[in-house]
Amino acid sequence: MFGEKLKRLFSPESIAVIGASDSFDKLGYHVMKSLVKGNYNHPIYPVNPNSQTIWGIKAYPSLSDIPYPVDLAVIVVPATRVPQILNECGKKDIKGVVLITAGYKEIDGEEGKALEDEIKRIAYEFKIPIIGPNTFGFVNLTDSVNASFTYEFSLIKNGGVTLISQSGGFCHLCGFLAMEERMGMAKLMSLGNRVNVDFPEAVKFFMEEDEATRVIALYIEGIDEPRRLFRAICNSKKKKPVIAYKAGRSEKGDAASRFHTGSLAGNYKIWKGALRQAKIFEVNSSEELIDTAKVLDICAPMKGNRVAVLSSQAGPGMIAADAIESSGMVLSRFSEHTQNAINKLLPPVAIRTNPVDMGPAWYSPETILNILKVVSEDENTDGIIFIAIFASANLNITRDMGRILEGMEPFKKPVIACFNAPHGVWDKEIDNIDGRKGVAVIHTPERAAKAMANLYEISMKKD
Amino acid sequence: MFGEKLKRLFSPESIAVIGASDSFDKLGYHVMKSLVKGNYNHPIYPVNPNSQTIWGIKAYPSLSDIPYPVDLAVIVVPATRVPQILNECGKKDIKGVVLITAGYKEIDGEEGKALEDEIKRIAYEFKIPIIGPNTFGFVNLTDSVNASFTYEFSLIKNGGVTLISQSGGFCHLCGFLAMEERMGMAKLMSLGNRVNVDFPEAVKFFMEEDEATRVIALYIEGIDEPRRLFRAICNSKKKKPVIAYKAGRSEKGDAASRFHTGSLAGNYKIWKGALRQAKIFEVNSSEELIDTAKVLDICAPMKGNRVAVLSSQAGPGMIAADAIESSGMVLSRFSEHTQNAINKLLPPVAIRTNPVDMGPAWYSPETILNILKVVSEDENTDGIIFIAIFASANLNITRDMGRILEGMEPFKKPVIACFNAPHGVWDKEIDNIDGRKGVAVIHTPERAAKAMANLYEISMKKD
Repeated sequence: MFGEKLKRLFSPESIAVIGASDSFDKLGYHVMKSLVKGNYNHPIYPVNPNSQTIWGIKAYPSLSDIPYPVDLAVIVVPATRVPQILNECGKKDIKGVVLITAGYKEIDGEEGKALEDEIKRIAYEFKIPIIGPNTFGFVNLTDSVNASFTYEFSLIKNGGVTLISQSGGFCHLCGFLAMEERMGMAKLMSLGNRVNVDFPEAVKFFMEEDEATRVIALYIEGIDEPRRLFRAICNSKKKKPVIAYKAGRSEKGDAASRFHTGSLAGNYKIWKGALRQAKIFEVNSSEELIDTAKVLDICAPMKGNRVAVLSSQAGPGMIAADAIESSGMVLSRFSEHTQNAINKLLPPVAIRTNPVDMGPAWYSPETILNILKVVSEDENTDGIIFIAIFASANLNITRDMGRILEGMEPFKKPVIACFNAPHGVWDKEIDNIDGRKGVAVIHTPERAAKAMANLYEISMKKD
Repeated sequence: MFGEKLKRLFSPESIAVIGASDSFDKLGYHVMKSLVKGNYNHPIYPVNPNSQTIWGIKAYPSLSDIPYPVDLAVIVVPATRVPQILNECGKKDIKGVVLITAGYKEIDGEEGKALEDEIKRIAYEFKIPIIGPNTFGFVNLTDSVNASFTYEFSLIKNGGVTLISQSGGFCHLCGFLAMEERMGMAKLMSLGNRVNVDFPEAVKFFMEEDEATRVIALYIEGIDEPRRLFRAICNSKKKKPVIAYKAGRSEKGDAASRFHTGSLAGNYKIWKGALRQAKIFEVNSSEELIDTAKVLDICAPMKGNRVAVLSSQAGPGMIAADAIESSGMVLSRFSEHTQNAINKLLPPVAIRTNPVDMGPAWYSPETILNILKVVSEDENTDGIIFIAIFASANLNITRDMGRILEGMEPFKKPVIACFNAPHGVWDKEIDNIDGRKGVAVIHTPERAAKAMANLYEISMKKD
């Protein structure tokens, strides 16, 4: 429908900010901050009739006054002024719009609805794709385009997960969780009122056109034509794993959804079945969404449900063992060959069967990594959970582990590492391991086991 | 059994560190660091025959050479030297021992078992309570006593939760989660091999003798006489809420438990029933343990299951509504009086029924807090979940909210706030709200709902 325009919208080579501002209490200030401090490296054109410069950049009284071509317009002016600006956008052959402004069909009354219809008409006339209205915007971490009012999203690690959300609040919740959990993202966006870019358009684009996206995560409240979404996924020329978090499951939540984005959430049971049919994996919490997406992006697929637990502390290892069994997986039984190899690496005092007590190996990063390698090659093991909770004495060892890991082949089976530490203590050390060679770090042993179980289910469904 | 000695052990007025060291790779270094940097404000006596000073403090060749009385001895020398040192402790009338040294019954072979029996005999002879062996120690946050090898525990916020753990690794996991979640703790300890201080002794002490402890959290792998624990709780002269996380639920986990601390975890179903009978609330993950303990410590009891959701973002509010219903609670229906009061505070454009859309109130901290107050007084509401995900524009408002909250009466119903933000951005602002006036901050809407459901169940069982 929009041809090459969506590509230009998400990776624009110039951006105009309509309603840019130098005062902190305006959204136009925060959009400018996001672009400038988010290191956008193409021209920015602030538009504001009352200023010569904004954020130190030359400003223009109107869009038409900009003497250069503009790919993307980010609009933050009041709703009633938007139709005229959209007409200007069309005349200037702008490729795409982010319409942050709210006050359309999500509010009560006829006026908002009428304004939204007019916007839809103009967008149709000029064939301009619009993200929004009533959105915080989008962030493209691959190309450093933070077209949103939240600068902090630029601090998210670059990676392969793209979040398409029906709610800006959820995007914020997930973006901040992604930061904490070091999840690498390609793009995140809130669809808002979906005037002409809805789930099907966005999913199709990130599935087929965006190389950087390797995993798609959806947050869905309610949509009018779910079949269009499912068709877009099933008919896609490229296959990428899709996971979804469906809100509005309860009756009250459903009612809230109608108010929020103008669509009913719909009967949850029907949704559940439809998601399953479309091979969209459903998650049940924001943390599960982050963990599952992260593991899908980083780890090798999981070809069976037999898990090895290697833990430097027995307690957390036991917890992982419990969580593995309760989530439908089993602890693997090492082959004789593997067991002999482990026995050579660990002193006899250690528990060397699964879960393996890595405590006595904690003097030597080589030994730790050799055990990991041996177990990853075990014919009876499909995935590894590797646990190390911070203790002062193992600070240096973890550092060395990152260095040695760098020279190793990537693991051909999923390795989920549960490294827990106070903030600021092990950060660099974990950064050197997380996301490298197929190793994903997950917050707690229980979440690690759950993420692995999800990875297993998704890997199985793929074929 | 130990009279006043346990009090002196946990709040010692002098500490000797047997095996203190100046070299980073010795545990004796880290114990000294914990005491010194953890601001222990009574005398510390390092004991090491090869040094004049350790950590800049005068050292003694042996315990007997210290010319002052000593309350607590922390021992980190090899296992075979421990019996002789314990004899010295007895002769010096030391009140308690933390025996960090490992290598006793938890290892295979007769020698460890024999050494542990000897320790037990000496401890019995002199009536010395011993934490351990095979423990990381304990931390008393109330009195700044970090008698452990992990200095970072001193950074945990001071509060009312005491964790008694059978695993040092679990203590580390939980301690770090507590830091992230700003959970205030009174004490945390790992029992290790429990030579003479086991769950019953520790629980009885923190229940009856320690004023600072308001909530007790247990991490249990396997114990030989569970009835003694249950009796200690049921017969306690003071009542405090007790929650427990039971590991070793699966067969494999059970086997690992025997290796780890020398006790079988035992049949989980029997445990489950016994915990229920003893009114110990069972949690199912490390995060749930932290959230539940925190809410129990901070919030008022919950007298019914009717919850109000006030959210500055609709999406996370919907998620909370779903989580409330799926955890057995219901969204409350405001009384006419309450509804009228909210209608006056919020503009008509906002959703003013439950879940309440607080977005339009976000310009005014007074309005936000007034709505909170009105809803907390609603006769049909038993608890409030209040959600605000960070956005740059509401930084200052949250700051003001903390200031205004300071002048308010504490909430008589539980208020759980879900404030999510990137690290370093909202930290101070959240600190000014979290734990004040009955408001507890919990990480995500789903976890907030779960913590509230647990608070409700525990409040109901109390009577």
